[in-house]
Amino acid sequence: MPTQTFFSRVSRVFHDHPSVSRLLVLVTVSGGSLVAYADAGPTNGVPSIASTANVDEKKKKVVVLGTGWAGTSFLKNIKDPSYEVQVISPRNYFAFTPLLPSVTCGTVEARSIVEPIRNLVRKKRVDIRFNEAECYKIDAENRKLYCRSNENNNLNGKKEFVVDYDYLVIAVGAQVNTFNTPGVVENCHFLKEVEDAQRIRRTVIDCFERASLPTLDEEDRKKILHFAVVGGGPTGVEFAAELHDFVNEDLVKLYPGLQEFVKITLLEAGDHILNMFDKRITTFAEEKFRRDGIDVKTGSMVIKVTDKEISTKEMKNGEISSMPYGMTVWSTGIGTRPIIKDFMTQIGQANRRALATDEWLRVEGCDNVYALGDCATINQRKVMEDISAIFSKADKDNSGTLTVKEFQEVIDDICERYPQVELYLKNKQMHNIVDLLKGSKEDVAKESIELDIEEFKSALSQVDSQMKNLPATAQVAAQQGAYLAHCFNRMEECEKYPEGPLRFRGSGRHRFRPFRYKHLGQFAPLGGEQTAAQLPGDWVSIGHSSQWLWYSVYASKQVSWRTRALVVTDWTRRFIFGRDSSRI
Amino acid sequence: MPTQTFFSRVSRVFHDHPSVSRLLVLVTVSGGSLVAYADAGPTNGVPSIASTANVDEKKKKVVVLGTGWAGTSFLKNIKDPSYEVQVISPRNYFAFTPLLPSVTCGTVEARSIVEPIRNLVRKKRVDIRFNEAECYKIDAENRKLYCRSNENNNLNGKKEFVVDYDYLVIAVGAQVNTFNTPGVVENCHFLKEVEDAQRIRRTVIDCFERASLPTLDEEDRKKILHFAVVGGGPTGVEFAAELHDFVNEDLVKLYPGLQEFVKITLLEAGDHILNMFDKRITTFAEEKFRRDGIDVKTGSMVIKVTDKEISTKEMKNGEISSMPYGMTVWSTGIGTRPIIKDFMTQIGQANRRALATDEWLRVEGCDNVYALGDCATINQRKVMEDISAIFSKADKDNSGTLTVKEFQEVIDDICERYPQVELYLKNKQMHNIVDLLKGSKEDVAKESIELDIEEFKSALSQVDSQMKNLPATAQVAAQQGAYLAHCFNRMEECEKYPEGPLRFRGSGRHRFRPFRYKHLGQFAPLGGEQTAAQLPGDWVSIGHSSQWLWYSVYASKQVSWRTRALVVTDWTRRFIFGRDSSRI
Repeated sequence: MPTQTFFSRVSRVFHDHPSVSRLLVLVTVSGGSLVAYADAGPTNGVPSIASTANVDEKKKKVVVLGTGWAGTSFLKNIKDPSYEVQVISPRNYFAFTPLLPSVTCGTVEARSIVEPIRNLVRKKRVDIRFNEAECYKIDAENRKLYCRSNENNNLNGKKEFVVDYDYLVIAVGAQVNTFNTPGVVENCHFLKEVEDAQRIRRTVIDCFERASLPTLDEEDRKKILHFAVVGGGPTGVEFAAELHDFVNEDLVKLYPGLQEFVKITLLEAGDHILNMFDKRITTFAEEKFRRDGIDVKTGSMVIKVTDKEISTKEMKNGEISSMPYGMTVWSTGIGTRPIIKDFMTQIGQANRRALATDEWLRVEGCDNVYALGDCATINQRKVMEDISAIFSKADKDNSGTLTVKEFQEVIDDICERYPQVELYLKNKQMHNIVDLLKGSKEDVAKESIELDIEEFKSALSQVDSQMKNLPATAQVAAQQGAYLAHCFNRMEECEKYPEGPLRFRGSGRHRFRPFRYKHLGQFAPLGGEQTAAQLPGDWVSIGHSSQWLWYSVYASKQVSWRTRALVVTDWTRRFIFGRDSSRI
Repeated sequence: MPTQTFFSRVSRVFHDHPSVSRLLVLVTVSGGSLVAYADAGPTNGVPSIASTANVDEKKKKVVVLGTGWAGTSFLKNIKDPSYEVQVISPRNYFAFTPLLPSVTCGTVEARSIVEPIRNLVRKKRVDIRFNEAECYKIDAENRKLYCRSNENNNLNGKKEFVVDYDYLVIAVGAQVNTFNTPGVVENCHFLKEVEDAQRIRRTVIDCFERASLPTLDEEDRKKILHFAVVGGGPTGVEFAAELHDFVNEDLVKLYPGLQEFVKITLLEAGDHILNMFDKRITTFAEEKFRRDGIDVKTGSMVIKVTDKEISTKEMKNGEISSMPYGMTVWSTGIGTRPIIKDFMTQIGQANRRALATDEWLRVEGCDNVYALGDCATINQRKVMEDISAIFSKADKDNSGTLTVKEFQEVIDDICERYPQVELYLKNKQMHNIVDLLKGSKEDVAKESIELDIEEFKSALSQVDSQMKNLPATAQVAAQQGAYLAHCFNRMEECEKYPEGPLRFRGSGRHRFRPFRYKHLGQFAPLGGEQTAAQLPGDWVSIGHSSQWLWYSVYASKQVSWRTRALVVTDWTRRFIFGRDSSRI
């Protein structure tokens, strides 16, 4: 039949040549001039080198725990077919979490921001298998993982299984941190998983429907339509802004009498909301929210939540007060997952918030175990810990003093191994490390500077103050995943030809360059088509233009062309038809 | 800012002039040549006449229970602003239920087939209010409805309320009929609500994920991947076909080793599936399913379902057997909702399946209460019950005999009041009712036929055999809703100038013409882009062309331009990217 032939052909074309669908999407997208930002996938210019190992050799088994930003980024970038990869995660999909606040109000649909992991890996040449299960115990000593599949299983007794590994990549992320505040788990909504966002969406509509019932008085309506958001970080702020837009752009038309009863309160224990951003952004956001009628209460810590009320304590005067609410969303910082807590106790890292790794993302004290994303922090090496080793390594002629020439030979290695050095120089507006040495001997010509160990120590004594932990963001996790995959891809090659910096305490070089985070900027959508953007180099942009930058970046950063098309369609649809308020 | 200005302008244009968005959608849609079928909304050509009543007069209050096909169709068509309408339903949206089987496999998204009721009514000139609540008791004597709002309500003690009415429209639909088969409620999925479809979708993916776990043997995999569908009606058949396509077009790529273990069984107690369709369709469907590897077991009644097994009894030989399953979907006929059962007991209609109404959709024995859709059946009046009254009304000269001339004067009224007469004539291939009378007196010239009461009775004695109950379909419900709304719109006018047929038992005429169902045809999608269509006049079409007709009709029948655009987008997306298999 002609129609069928035509259509199955078109359909096949799309399946076989994804570039056509790209073209289609690009055409669609560029109609709205959305693509201002190219797809900036993590490529480091180094071509991956396929393993030359005999295929008959037993493949090394890599187990990846988690399918969030870090895990997925690792899977997308692993290319060496000499590995056999097994992925274990309770979710069979990757979720584009920065759009979760948009899902809460239906600006974007939940399905538009998720992509099945099996879809992401199925065309790779690497053997990757996925299991929907949760790992509940890591036994690093015997290289075993204890896993169980999801709950609703009607084949009892076969839920649990054990997995062996040669390399383990832990990327399980973090969980919500309630700071043990009573009543939070029972009464608050979180905003970490896709299901959370869907639940919030239903609850918002639920509040409006309940407030429409004929038997209520004004007081009841006010209580039900009071939305409290705890936590003034980017997620909480974005949710409050989305909710405000949803109410004022869409719900107000459908629930005409209720607008006057709606109140949104944003509670933040610190002095300002968005405190990780530039002060200009903080001020702008606070003022915009004030104009919008969102009640921003800074310096106000939540101490208890019951099923009807939320109790806060003013940080200034210790005053305690309570307010009734209809819905509370809790979005304050991240806590440690039980599996990570248990594992940290095993390997002597108890009482930490996250797994400590070195700069190569290897878990300290464990062989072949890597940790990345929100469940890990990089324990940066201090210059002062290694200062004697650095000095003796640099002092090639063992003269007991270091000349500039000797020093210059190891400068690059020092800067690579200890990134805080570079940051310090930048902060002090010095051109290079020689200026630092010179500091102590200003009267001497550069070439003839010579330092003994004590002088060297004092010159570098302040450098470690520049050390900073990386933020727990999607950006960091994604870069770590890509970095680790590239290390795995080049494992054999770098074993032979190490490319990392000098080992100051040992001999030879490190196999790989250490992980370096490249900050690409951060967005804080503030509602009403206005977004604050803080880009590298302290470039701050606030308003509609950064909203368009936000659209472009978020569209380009989608993991697949499918989700990209869906997200763009959702935005378009929202502009045309508004957000849907069906309670499903 | 230029971009913003441009965009807010465009956005405003769309909001203010919905016709522009229609244009846009039409352009989009016609690109795929989908609109072959015009938007056939129920209009009967009669302009609605606005009430001339003084606005100060108290408005008559109409309460509508339910927001399914019947209720929504009533709301869309009610135009007389002299009513005050209150809608009470546990769902704040209308769902396009014929697409539910598509939602189970993600061919269409759940949100694409729902439209908030508030959205559908907000631009009407009639005062319509909506309450998300469930009516649990009708007190027709005192004209009171007892309602309660949904469960998750944190303002206890204010859940319940009472609503008065002047007119009551009952359109609560039906519930699933388990025929009291043990274990069905606990272990089977249904396919009646949007939530059911979403749950089925999650469970299908769940079965595939569970079957992928490393510890299972082949037997386990076969058990988990056995999908049983109970009921060979259009819904069950369409679901089985959708599932087969989902597995073979999408899942097989993502779960490569599992295809051989998948089995779909369709169980039907009758001799054939799709038994309300033409025999050609039934045969085609059974053969297609056989080719596809779907196991069609007719004459097999389910007698028990446990958490692991489903037990059936062969109708032929009474043989009982059991088979393990991974998921069972139960889709066999409809049952009565508790509120309707209770109401029927009150008004002396106990032991019926649905509320009995007359041809004007008025509940028998209740003033001002109307019932339509799946919760009601029209109790058609038999000709033989009224035969004496008809005779004496027609016999104007009281001669004791009826001439053809006398009879011809009331023919139209008889045909209108008793639609079975027309059906009978058509069946017997008679041109008009005179042929029927002539039947008993073949030798007499047409003009001189005269019948006495006994001859008249015997001529019409077979007519009532043509009476048929209307099927419980969306089409019937929608037409009933529109019909009732038109009656309400013209209530005052028709009080003065009745337009219905003669009252044979009383004097004067009925206010309105009785409800007449106009069958527009029925579809049975069979998977693989093939659909069977049975159109009026026994026109049967099977294959790809009717699939395209199906697309066109279902796109055109959407209740709003928003859902129309979404459904078409979903289909397009499915062709390009396939169905999503994320387990959310």
